[in-house]
Amino acid sequence: MTDAAPRRRGRPSRTQTEAAPATRDRILDAAREEFSERGYEKTSVRGIAKAAGVDSALVHHYFGTKEQVFEAAIEVAFAPALAAPVAVEDGPLDGVGERLTRFIFGIWENPATRAPLLAIVRSAVNNETAAAVFRRLIAAQLLRRIAQQVDLPDAELRAELAAAQLVGVAMLRYVIRVEPLASADLEAIIARVAPVVQGHLTLP
Amino acid sequence: MTDAAPRRRGRPSRTQTEAAPATRDRILDAAREEFSERGYEKTSVRGIAKAAGVDSALVHHYFGTKEQVFEAAIEVAFAPALAAPVAVEDGPLDGVGERLTRFIFGIWENPATRAPLLAIVRSAVNNETAAAVFRRLIAAQLLRRIAQQVDLPDAELRAELAAAQLVGVAMLRYVIRVEPLASADLEAIIARVAPVVQGHLTLP
Repeated sequence: MTDAAPRRRGRPSRTQTEAAPATRDRILDAAREEFSERGYEKTSVRGIAKAAGVDSALVHHYFGTKEQVFEAAIEVAFAPALAAPVAVEDGPLDGVGERLTRFIFGIWENPATRAPLLAIVRSAVNNETAAAVFRRLIAAQLLRRIAQQVDLPDAELRAELAAAQLVGVAMLRYVIRVEPLASADLEAIIARVAPVVQGHLTLP
Repeated sequence: MTDAAPRRRGRPSRTQTEAAPATRDRILDAAREEFSERGYEKTSVRGIAKAAGVDSALVHHYFGTKEQVFEAAIEVAFAPALAAPVAVEDGPLDGVGERLTRFIFGIWENPATRAPLLAIVRSAVNNETAAAVFRRLIAAQLLRRIAQQVDLPDAELRAELAAAQLVGVAMLRYVIRVEPLASADLEAIIARVAPVVQGHLTLP
């Protein structure tokens, strides 16, 4: 019920406006925490509000529905990954596979950036609404931008197959933790994965 | 509580023995159904027993703990995938990438075999016990056997990186359903993915 409540109308009061950035961030932090711990389905706007020490109405006021709070929380958690297209364009096209591979593994190897990413993946795998948000975000902000830089026929499909190799390694290494992949030397993995990513993106 | 109950000791009664195969299958069907619908964490032995129309003690008698019921249910759901090593050995090594790729996508493209697979992936992503069962099963029964047939240095790592490409495509195409990958022609995907799987398995 609460989740579907419309965004609160009207201008926020003066106090709200002044407190806005801090409160908004506090709600976002609480949302990330709640979604990470409970997953999308079991998280409620009421729970997020409680964890942030605010009223549910304020959460709706800033973000709207639960789906919109999730999208905002994802965007923050996903911010490091969303910089991938910058890594891609930052050099010659024949090194794009290695740059992208190093960039993505850099995020997964760092526990601080891995945890929120893992939470998103878990929610997206389990819930259709969360999957839709994830889909929209990675498609529009990540894969499409990489595809634009590759600029070949089937560039989007190419970007997705390259992403699939990276997603699959991340799943088996960091989520399911299959050995020997989970403990393998990162450079050994990069040496085998980067040419695949390069191939998907640029080989005829 | 119930989940941790020990396997019931003693010989089953005569009636139990006679009814065994049918009852065991009915419990397994119910378990697969329950794990699919609720995921590992929310499923209980009591719930499985209820769905199968038997007493919880009988579930413990046949399978043991919840983890063991899960493992038995996975093995059934995973049976088609566990035949992959047969597909791998069934021809020359330079066609192994395409054979394995076609085999795995064959399972994912068929809704009847996809659904239970999806349920396992969901559980494994969300729960450490389920992940451990999954890990044990795919490592021992799938990846290690493929590695044995490849018979090169790092064969297990190779098999896992090949699996990672297939897992990643399955995630993006069937679970998250990112476009254009989700609607792309299967042969177009196989044309790009099979050489990658081949390369991981056999290239120097």
